[in-house]
Formats: sequence, C-alpha cells, structure tokens
Amino acid sequence: MEITFLGTSSAVHSYERNHPSIVIKAFGEVMMFDCGEGTQRQLIYAKISPMKISKIFITHYHGDHILGLPGLLQSMNFRGREKKLTIYGPKGLNKVINAIYNLGFTKIDFPIEFIEIGSEIVEKTKEYIIKSQEVKHQVPSLAYSIEELKKPRFLREKAIELGVPVGPDFGRLHNGEEVEINGKIIKPEQVLGPPRKGRKITYSGDSAPCEEMIELAQDSTVLIHESTYVNEDKDKAEEHFHSTSSDAACIAKESNSKRLILTHFSTRYQNTDQLLNEARKIFDKTETAEDLKKIEL
Amino acid sequence: MEITFLGTSSAVHSYERNHPSIVIKAFGEVMMFDCGEGTQRQLIYAKISPMKISKIFITHYHGDHILGLPGLLQSMNFRGREKKLTIYGPKGLNKVINAIYNLGFTKIDFPIEFIEIGSEIVEKTKEYIIKSQEVKHQVPSLAYSIEELKKPRFLREKAIELGVPVGPDFGRLHNGEEVEINGKIIKPEQVLGPPRKGRKITYSGDSAPCEEMIELAQDSTVLIHESTYVNEDKDKAEEHFHSTSSDAACIAKESNSKRLILTHFSTRYQNTDQLLNEARKIFDKTETAEDLKKIEL
Repeated sequence: MEITFLGTSSAVHSYERNHPSIVIKAFGEVMMFDCGEGTQRQLIYAKISPMKISKIFITHYHGDHILGLPGLLQSMNFRGREKKLTIYGPKGLNKVINAIYNLGFTKIDFPIEFIEIGSEIVEKTKEYIIKSQEVKHQVPSLAYSIEELKKPRFLREKAIELGVPVGPDFGRLHNGEEVEINGKIIKPEQVLGPPRKGRKITYSGDSAPCEEMIELAQDSTVLIHESTYVNEDKDKAEEHFHSTSSDAACIAKESNSKRLILTHFSTRYQNTDQLLNEARKIFDKTETAEDLKKIEL
Repeated sequence: MEITFLGTSSAVHSYERNHPSIVIKAFGEVMMFDCGEGTQRQLIYAKISPMKISKIFITHYHGDHILGLPGLLQSMNFRGREKKLTIYGPKGLNKVINAIYNLGFTKIDFPIEFIEIGSEIVEKTKEYIIKSQEVKHQVPSLAYSIEELKKPRFLREKAIELGVPVGPDFGRLHNGEEVEINGKIIKPEQVLGPPRKGRKITYSGDSAPCEEMIELAQDSTVLIHESTYVNEDKDKAEEHFHSTSSDAACIAKESNSKRLILTHFSTRYQNTDQLLNEARKIFDKTETAEDLKKIEL
C-alpha cells in the first residue's frame, strides 16, 4: 500500500500546500480521496497517471475538497479515457455532478458511476474492505477506512498430519474451501491459524472529534486525521466543526492506531511545529503530511 | 501597465505551465483575463492579491479557461470580500455562473455583476477603452483589447499667445473643456497637439486566424496571441479552430503590432523553440509567455 499526499492545506491553500487530496495505491487499484482545485497538476508532480484512477471517494462538498473534480474528469476525457470511473460521496452527489456537467462546454464521454453513501461497507473483496462513516462537520461528511483482509496462516504440518496431499488442496483450504480426503471432510478451520490483522488506513476528511471516528479508526496502521487548529484555537475548531491536533492525537490513542499523520492545516500558523508538538505530547508516533510526501506500508 | 502571465498552457497543462490566465494592472485596476484551474494558486506565486481584482474577462467557456473561477470566487468570499466584482464573458455566462453557485456548498455573499457581451466597447473611461471582439473558435469566443486613451500634448506657448492666463484654465482646456477669456471662447483644439497613440494590449483568447483579430489588434503595443501548434500541424489547428505560431506572427505583422507574445502551447511539443523560430521568420519581435513572467509597458 502506498499513500501519496497531493494536497495538505485546509480551505485556504498556501505557497507550499495545495487543497486536499490523497491517492492510495493498493490491491492493484489507484484510489483518490478528495480532489481539491489543482489536484490534477499535483498528480503530474507526483508522477501518478490520472488515467489509472479507478475510484474517487469524496468526504464532503466544500470547495476545497471537490473543485479539482471538473478539471480532472475533463482531462481524463481529453486523453481518451474509456475505462469506467466510480465516484463515491455523501448525500448531494448528484447535485454536485450536475453542476460539473453544466460548467461550460464540458464534454465527458467515458462512463462514470456516482454512488451516494452513508455509514456502510462501500466495497468488500477477498483482499480488502472499504468502509465509510458519517462524522461531525457543518455539512454531511464522511470518513473512510481501507483495510487489508489478510488470510490466516496455513498450517502446512497440520494439513499433512490430517492426510491432505501436498498440492492444489492446500490452496483450496487456504482460500476457505472444504476438501474431501479418502471420504473424510477436512474443514479450513482445521488447518488455518488464528485471524490476522491486515494493514489499515483511515482518513478523517473534515470532522470535529467524535466517537464514530474512533470506532472507524480502530487498530489503524495509519490514521490520517485533519488537524486544522492548535489547542488555543479550540473555540474556532468547535465553531467550524474541525479538530485540533490534540483532538487528532486523542483519536489515534483511543483507536489504538499505530501511526498518526496530521493534515488539513490552517494557514494562520506559520508552520506546523506547534500542531505537531501538541499532538506528540498525547501520541508519540505523530508526523505531518506534506504535499507530494509518499508513504509505503 | 503591467502584464503577468499566470498560466500559459493549452487544454492540457504541464509541469511548467498552468492553465490560461493573465492579469493586467493598469489605470488603478487589477483585471484578470481567463481563469483556468489553479489560477488562485498562481496568484500566490505571483504575489497578486485576489482581493484587488475588480474585473474578470472570460474569452470562452472551455474548462481550461474557466475552471479556476469557482475556487477564486469562494476564496474571495472566504477572506471577507465586500467589494463588487464584475465578470464579463460571451453568451452562456449565466449558465456557467449557475453551475458555479451549485457546485457543492458554495457560499458567495459579495456582489458579482455578470455581463454577457459580444463585439463591443466593454468600457470607456477618460483613461482607457476596453473592447471585445467575437473571434473564430469551436464555441462562442472573444478576444479583448485594452487601450490607453492618451491626451494630445497641451501647447502651452499657443495658449499663452491666445491670452489664456497660466493657471487652472490650462487644465480645463487639456481636459477638453472650452474656456472664456475676456469674452472670447478658446476651444481645446486650438491649444492641443495632434492625437497621440496610447499603449495597447490585445489578447486573442482561443481563435483560428481571422480578419476580426487583425482589426482588433491594430497598432497594439503588445499582442498576446494563442499559438497552440507548429506549421506542420496546421491541419490540427484548423480542425480545432486554433492558430499556429506562424498564424499569430502574420496577425502581429498585418495588425502593425509592435511586439508579439505567444502563449497557449500544446504539450505535444517538448519546448517552444520551433514555435518561436517559425513565428520570428515572419515577425521578428516575437517572444514566448512563461508562467509568472511579468512585463512592464
């Protein structure tokens, strides 16, 4: 799994930080989370082809999280995209998409599926599960998690002991199928180890601290959490339904996450030192997101 | 007059070139021409405050020329803008603006005046005149010129000879008012020199070469002309109603312009050498626009 931060500002972008967008490459897919203005240019800098993106997950419809969509879709079309794109977002997606299609002489010929979601399992394959969770913001807003579904270890010695011949039956059992050996049924649970945790990435989008976020983020390998304000501006965070870096750190701690990456910084702070220091007092394994930073898990 | 190029690419932007936008500072106004995606970030790099922009002139409604508008307007609002903004554009402006207002939870409280225009005098003050001209593109498209209205020289000696006392009557006559001296009417034309050409900037927007463009650009100090293709791709230029750099150079020559600045380059060319060389064979005073390049006139 590879995370690339394309934009790490909050509503007002800066010299160093573009509006929010994250790309996660995992399980053969290239998935984008949010798409602020200028995201397609950041893709060039990050050397990620927009043509390979298969899914876009929008957290909410504030401009800083969506204004890169019209240009990205038009550019995909311009380059002759034929492959389907799926766009997920909270309630209101169709209104936003209608506006995108009416924004000038837009031409988008390739198939796009728009899926409005709430708190749910968005997608589940044998390899991974993506969940969305309604969180606390001024407008309907989602957080997302993507978790690897790791198979339990295959207990080779046990299988041999039970008379399973070395060969394709090993794979069948490991994939959860029963097999019959000399009239005797061997069940997968007889030859599989205990459940194993896969890698998990959780992204908060914009949200005030809330229980739902802690629940979604449970046992994350990486929790990417908004951190718009420092502690002394807690009143502003509350007023605008945002989090402080201390809020983000508490959520990382309470959710038993392994690593916290702060993002969505207000331009009112000259740098991220205070945000980072405040968070580290609560949760040591904290770092800051930077535009074009890549992380391999 | 100061020209700043914010974006100089064509429909596909690149590592070095953002989507089209130009800012002209003149006569106490900050005027923007086109506003491609990412323009507000380019403004940061160019150190131009979006709050000072009083007028935006759109050439046409292809995405690369307008997708920076929603974000720019939202940011102005976010920063508490109260000053009116005027946006000019060809037929279809209201449809585009409606889409902008419906693009997510957009909030724009400050007054914006939207003015649909064709070929006309857009604005005329004592100091300058702005004209728009319908040109040849796939969709309704305008070129613009902004021209300084320079007063004729005031012939001081002649005024004294006619009995005008040194003082405020000099200013009145220079401003085009008659004055009465000892019962005798002195008319401005008696004390003013011949008409003088002021500085003039013309911007083509997107257009195939056409007579209308030559007419609008007549005697420009600077002609900023699109130059999407080289000569050997003339068929593509014709197909998409664009110009080659040679077309742009011919227009500069035929319009008696002093200086030609090529812009709106296709990413199919590794650099602008061929475009520039072809143009210079026809019109020597040719140069290329680069993102964040500033020109003082």
